[in-house]
Amino acid sequence: MALKSFIQVHSDSHFPIQNLPYGVFKPQPGGEARPGVAIGDFVLDLSAIANAGLFDGPVLKNSDCFVQPSLNKFLGMGRPAWKEARATIQKLLSFDEPTLRDNGSLREKALFPMNKVQMLLPIVIGDYTDFFSSMHHAKNCGTIFRGPENPIPANWFHLPIAYHGRASSIVISGTDIIRPRGQGHPTGNSPPYFGPSLKLDFELEMAAVIGPGNELGKPVDVNEAADHIFGLVLMNDWSARDIQAWEYVPLGPFLGKSFGTTISPWIVTLDALEPFACDAPKQEPIPLPYLTEKKSRNYDISLEVEIKPTGQEHSSVVTRSNFKHLYWTLTQQLAHHTINGCNLRPGDLLGTGTISGPEPESHGCLLELTWNGQRPLSLNGSTRKFLEDGDEIIITGCCKGNGYNVGFGTCSGKIVPAPL
Amino acid sequence: MALKSFIQVHSDSHFPIQNLPYGVFKPQPGGEARPGVAIGDFVLDLSAIANAGLFDGPVLKNSDCFVQPSLNKFLGMGRPAWKEARATIQKLLSFDEPTLRDNGSLREKALFPMNKVQMLLPIVIGDYTDFFSSMHHAKNCGTIFRGPENPIPANWFHLPIAYHGRASSIVISGTDIIRPRGQGHPTGNSPPYFGPSLKLDFELEMAAVIGPGNELGKPVDVNEAADHIFGLVLMNDWSARDIQAWEYVPLGPFLGKSFGTTISPWIVTLDALEPFACDAPKQEPIPLPYLTEKKSRNYDISLEVEIKPTGQEHSSVVTRSNFKHLYWTLTQQLAHHTINGCNLRPGDLLGTGTISGPEPESHGCLLELTWNGQRPLSLNGSTRKFLEDGDEIIITGCCKGNGYNVGFGTCSGKIVPAPL
Repeated sequence: MALKSFIQVHSDSHFPIQNLPYGVFKPQPGGEARPGVAIGDFVLDLSAIANAGLFDGPVLKNSDCFVQPSLNKFLGMGRPAWKEARATIQKLLSFDEPTLRDNGSLREKALFPMNKVQMLLPIVIGDYTDFFSSMHHAKNCGTIFRGPENPIPANWFHLPIAYHGRASSIVISGTDIIRPRGQGHPTGNSPPYFGPSLKLDFELEMAAVIGPGNELGKPVDVNEAADHIFGLVLMNDWSARDIQAWEYVPLGPFLGKSFGTTISPWIVTLDALEPFACDAPKQEPIPLPYLTEKKSRNYDISLEVEIKPTGQEHSSVVTRSNFKHLYWTLTQQLAHHTINGCNLRPGDLLGTGTISGPEPESHGCLLELTWNGQRPLSLNGSTRKFLEDGDEIIITGCCKGNGYNVGFGTCSGKIVPAPL
Repeated sequence: MALKSFIQVHSDSHFPIQNLPYGVFKPQPGGEARPGVAIGDFVLDLSAIANAGLFDGPVLKNSDCFVQPSLNKFLGMGRPAWKEARATIQKLLSFDEPTLRDNGSLREKALFPMNKVQMLLPIVIGDYTDFFSSMHHAKNCGTIFRGPENPIPANWFHLPIAYHGRASSIVISGTDIIRPRGQGHPTGNSPPYFGPSLKLDFELEMAAVIGPGNELGKPVDVNEAADHIFGLVLMNDWSARDIQAWEYVPLGPFLGKSFGTTISPWIVTLDALEPFACDAPKQEPIPLPYLTEKKSRNYDISLEVEIKPTGQEHSSVVTRSNFKHLYWTLTQQLAHHTINGCNLRPGDLLGTGTISGPEPESHGCLLELTWNGQRPLSLNGSTRKFLEDGDEIIITGCCKGNGYNVGFGTCSGKIVPAPL
């Protein structure tokens, strides 16, 4: 029989006892930030559980990792701490365990209705890296910008291409995104365009949250890389295509991306995702030995993007994709990132890049969906080439288990006008 | 008569009372990290001065900004705090001021011989950005990689191009640099090279240290940008040219840079640099209004790079350049960085990019100096196309005043072999 919690969890909830994703929240505005775990429509306050002495395993017994305003300390402790915490929390929340179930005053201190709390960035992000690991996305972008002959650069099949992103402008789901201003491509001999971006886009991504890091100069073996990954979040890597197109030669994306990146509040652990592991796509050519894994795995995570156009009451699904389409795996990304000796630190974020699937309806951004504005999307009566002020983007992600989901909740953000 | 300290300062010292650069140090291994100011061959311990109640101005009187393991808090307080601190320290150290001069026990607590202390990274760096602001460097690189026709990309004269760098691998002067391993360009139909970089290079740069930041979505006006810059350091942006050349299309430099970046320990303030301000180069075409400054200024800072080849006792100067050669000013860089709403935070680092001058002997990296290895350098009997294990690079920077220097000390690092 499936594991069950004494807390009632709807069958379509993203947060049954099989999931237990980690976040950071304030019970009320002005309260102190603390780690929590999602269970059904509630948040379990891990600082309250720690203060009650209920983390009594050998690794966590004397740790203050849950009395912190971020998860970084816990992340740095690695898999033994994560396994112990998961076992403790799963037991505490289970149907036939009386410790929390039958202790009214503790329940009152430790369980908060999710719709009453304020979710915060769960991690202090030292560095944020964004990969480019979907072959379909690489192919579509290449075709749009360089034509259908050799759309994918020669290096792409040999290494997981990435760039350093901006950590300071990563925001939590629900934060408004201010339309960026900047320079766009000049036409003919005219000077470059300057003003609010005319080609504002979303990018459907996920991101790995780093657990224990590595020392500078000490690469991580690809077969040990999973031990450095705590879990995954949904990510929207908002992009201003006109700014990006003009600035990115020769040093890559900069202001076209750095005005805002949204992540979902709940980090779903690799332990919770384990039942949804699947084979990664076959790689041809075979990658260099430092990228060759004993077992190359992805996860079967259904992803959806909805647009709620300004002024409309309802949102329309514009993309249905899946994490499993990624060509380069998370562990290959991490091994590549460190092969030169670069050090990762707990809380670092590794974005996957836009996750496009093979079909047109699985394209992960408007650039691809509208083919750079050439084929506007029809949304319940209105049309979109790129995003307008007031448009909201809602990303969801979910794994379908046998009678339960392991879900990511949502990652949303609304476009507000550029400053005058 | 010039300002003078009661501490004896050699006339060729980088650190007279006119300079007073800030760093963070430990008086002995195992001691606590604390802010200090360089004066001649000594370090003044600011935590000792603060604990003695000698920061008695209105801004700093009740602040704990000097009882911190980094300068970030002080940086975030902005120009009023910086001006007050400079005035207080300059008075305390001056020739005819008895407070510190005649207090033996305080002198013992607060002054340490510089050669006895351990210098640390002075700031916690949230984000590190690297610009590409030397026209000579852009032209040389373009000529080497794309030929002499239109070597500079069309966007270059319209905006200060930059990319996000890696913050985690920034190290303090004196830290060994481990030769990175990685993939290099395949030749013909062969698979890509993999192994220790064969084209390891230095890059002569300087970097601005950000003081008060800006809110996400609120750009900084170019004419107010100087108030967000605390000071400058020397920087060596080590680069693996073979890794960089293979990986950088289309998302820019990544592992070719992220294995290590060295900065000098002393942050020289804009206040100390003020006497060395000079006109910036004329810009043609005139930049967009958001980049147009009332007064466009550089600083006259002489820069030198020495190589001490492995096994040799002496180093050879290979580059003589100057900060004043930069086409885009620091304030333009900062205004551009924030025009899309991107937020800066105290302690962020903005690298200038390689500072090459117009003459061949002023080229700021081996890529240019040896023209991508085609013209090896002769160094006291040995030759170099790129760096070998055991080679040490020493960067110095200095402004020549009337009877005194305002200098940056050195920024050095030695190459050690790649892991097996």
